[in-house]
Amino acid sequence: MTRAVPDGLLTDLEVIRKDFPILERTLAGGQPLVYLDSANTSQKPQVVIDAMVDHLEHHNANIARAMHQLGAESTAAFEGARDKVAAFLNAPSRDEVIFTKNASEALNLVARTFPLTAGDRVVITEMEHHSNIVPWQLATERSGAELRWFGLTDDGQLDLSNIDELLTPQTKVVALTWVSNMLGTINPVAEIARRAHEVGAVVVLDASQAAPQLPVDVQAVGADFLAFTGHKVTGPTGIGVLWGRTELLDQLPPFLGGGEMIATVSMAKSTWAPIPHKFEAGTPPIVEAIGLGAALDYISHIGLERIHAHEQAITGYLLDGLASVSGVKVLGPTDPTARGGAVAFELDGVHPHDVAQLLDSRGIAVRAGHHCAKPAHKRYGVQSSTRASSYLYTTPAEIDALIDGLEHTKNYFKVG
Amino acid sequence: MTRAVPDGLLTDLEVIRKDFPILERTLAGGQPLVYLDSANTSQKPQVVIDAMVDHLEHHNANIARAMHQLGAESTAAFEGARDKVAAFLNAPSRDEVIFTKNASEALNLVARTFPLTAGDRVVITEMEHHSNIVPWQLATERSGAELRWFGLTDDGQLDLSNIDELLTPQTKVVALTWVSNMLGTINPVAEIARRAHEVGAVVVLDASQAAPQLPVDVQAVGADFLAFTGHKVTGPTGIGVLWGRTELLDQLPPFLGGGEMIATVSMAKSTWAPIPHKFEAGTPPIVEAIGLGAALDYISHIGLERIHAHEQAITGYLLDGLASVSGVKVLGPTDPTARGGAVAFELDGVHPHDVAQLLDSRGIAVRAGHHCAKPAHKRYGVQSSTRASSYLYTTPAEIDALIDGLEHTKNYFKVG
Repeated sequence: MTRAVPDGLLTDLEVIRKDFPILERTLAGGQPLVYLDSANTSQKPQVVIDAMVDHLEHHNANIARAMHQLGAESTAAFEGARDKVAAFLNAPSRDEVIFTKNASEALNLVARTFPLTAGDRVVITEMEHHSNIVPWQLATERSGAELRWFGLTDDGQLDLSNIDELLTPQTKVVALTWVSNMLGTINPVAEIARRAHEVGAVVVLDASQAAPQLPVDVQAVGADFLAFTGHKVTGPTGIGVLWGRTELLDQLPPFLGGGEMIATVSMAKSTWAPIPHKFEAGTPPIVEAIGLGAALDYISHIGLERIHAHEQAITGYLLDGLASVSGVKVLGPTDPTARGGAVAFELDGVHPHDVAQLLDSRGIAVRAGHHCAKPAHKRYGVQSSTRASSYLYTTPAEIDALIDGLEHTKNYFKVG
Repeated sequence: MTRAVPDGLLTDLEVIRKDFPILERTLAGGQPLVYLDSANTSQKPQVVIDAMVDHLEHHNANIARAMHQLGAESTAAFEGARDKVAAFLNAPSRDEVIFTKNASEALNLVARTFPLTAGDRVVITEMEHHSNIVPWQLATERSGAELRWFGLTDDGQLDLSNIDELLTPQTKVVALTWVSNMLGTINPVAEIARRAHEVGAVVVLDASQAAPQLPVDVQAVGADFLAFTGHKVTGPTGIGVLWGRTELLDQLPPFLGGGEMIATVSMAKSTWAPIPHKFEAGTPPIVEAIGLGAALDYISHIGLERIHAHEQAITGYLLDGLASVSGVKVLGPTDPTARGGAVAFELDGVHPHDVAQLLDSRGIAVRAGHHCAKPAHKRYGVQSSTRASSYLYTTPAEIDALIDGLEHTKNYFKVG
């Protein structure tokens, strides 16, 4: 199969690929790795690994508490990573950047501490990842607040037709994903934030899928809180970020209690440190924050606009390829300019797990299952799907391999 | 100063030191690093760093969710680390090992989810790290339960004289540290657990300082929950462990909500996965768990009994050295067999921060401050102290350098 290479690809794609050691990997059976599972976790460039190794081999110490030279070096590196995150998000203040272990902890932090009472309403959407559903279920059950949600249109968009009904003065929180991890949909978050603010609600954005591939500007988008995770932006696991506006973070009670988050402790009573430390109990993920900082440097150096154009080009190429395979049905928007680089699909007559397994036997790594988005699958009448997701290192040849693999899968299962 | 080398030192100490790249480090001014801050965080052997690098360069993928070859490799490595933790703790079941981001999260998990009501009592101790005080303050404030604590004797031991008064059928939780991070005291946790169980209380052990230097057997000690952290056992930051008995973990409600901790999710309601996954929302610290597994292999291969003997020998040597410096007062037990390898002390007439700074100018890294144990400092009438803490790589020569440094500090400040 030879198709025209799409416009918008990163021009230095082969150079970029050399930054990622794992892309040299050969799998069992001798196939080269075709990694199309980046929405699940991204691969790591050498500079991120090297930054972590350099810290562990030469600068490792605990932070803040340690006033010796290693401690000062470690603290500077850790707090430097906070500066990098603040710049990456265009946050008004570095103190608004809270390090968590992952995006889930960041979303739970808000859901657990934001004051809600009976009569209040929280609005989410039917395309949320479980990490932006379950914390709000727990929070509304605990408080007696009401949980409502935006539904989805047949073409994988948010159904905003009842926005006036959902967003009322009762509505205290609107929590939604910027980019769907399953449908790929890029939501009109700035417009929804504007409407939410009109009724006095705060807006919590799950940017787990947005941060890797879109320029994220918390001020321009009008977010009040925003969460993302390190391991999807070429950084390590074990590190996530909650950004929040100072006046809101100042008002929230603490989340986890322990060292570093206190001002004073007596046996009977404690008082809290200012943000961000109020929300960072215990020894934080130090080497992970440093790795995240290196990752943000790396993708920022390439440029989020360029990465976004690459993702759109690859996704368009992928959608065209999938359209050429009879029996494939894409879940989510089919316009590549309206979506991110994760494409979930069904292959008629073959279970997604079998699709993934057949592809894996050819070295092609995709995800099969509910992708932590059971309600969105249910909305489209399916239990599970196969998902191919690209990133800045994905090539058209890898998409070709996927499409060939799907034809092979159809032949193998004698469908279509 | 030449003193007899103490018995019990690791015989292969110089070989062990070569495992830690940072110990080759030269500081500003050309001094070799004398790292005496291991109770704050331990240094990392090459095998731990290499295990993390190998994962990131060759096997990185998300776990559980990913059914491709990389995903299977990553899942096997992550779950293999859980097996290693279970073996390290002598846990009856691997499912009782929950990965958290640090010991603080582990303790907060229990304090946040354990059912308490007005009339219940929680008992802690005056020597706890803030991470085992603040979560219980928050839990008892929330529930209306009563917070009580064991006081301390003048020689740095738990004052158990009122144990019959503190442990009553009202007492639902007894939470205490196995080894004090400030006083060094090794507490009689098995005996306290036995007494706590007699009144039906559960026992939560903070093993953050114990796990690095003592054989930890959760069954032998009679714990119901036990927490420790990766970065103090030669592992990375970003990973901690909560171990709990199956029947208790099964009863607790979830802590953080999100992916991987659910059985089913609909928009209105969710149900929970079995342990350990119920308590592991979101992408866990994968490479960190793998690093922790390598760290436990490393220290287990050396042997916890041997490490404990080394710590006792070094601590005895340190205590003898400190006794030779007039104006030094040790906080905590002076019998090295009754304590772990962290020694906090005052130097008469010099602020601990000045002590630490002078030592740092000679390349000697110690901690100065309250060590996240403000109540214990208050108990002994001080705001802060200097703390020297050893580990399996600490040599008598490093202790000599500290003692020389203290004499230098006294001369510099013209005290004593």
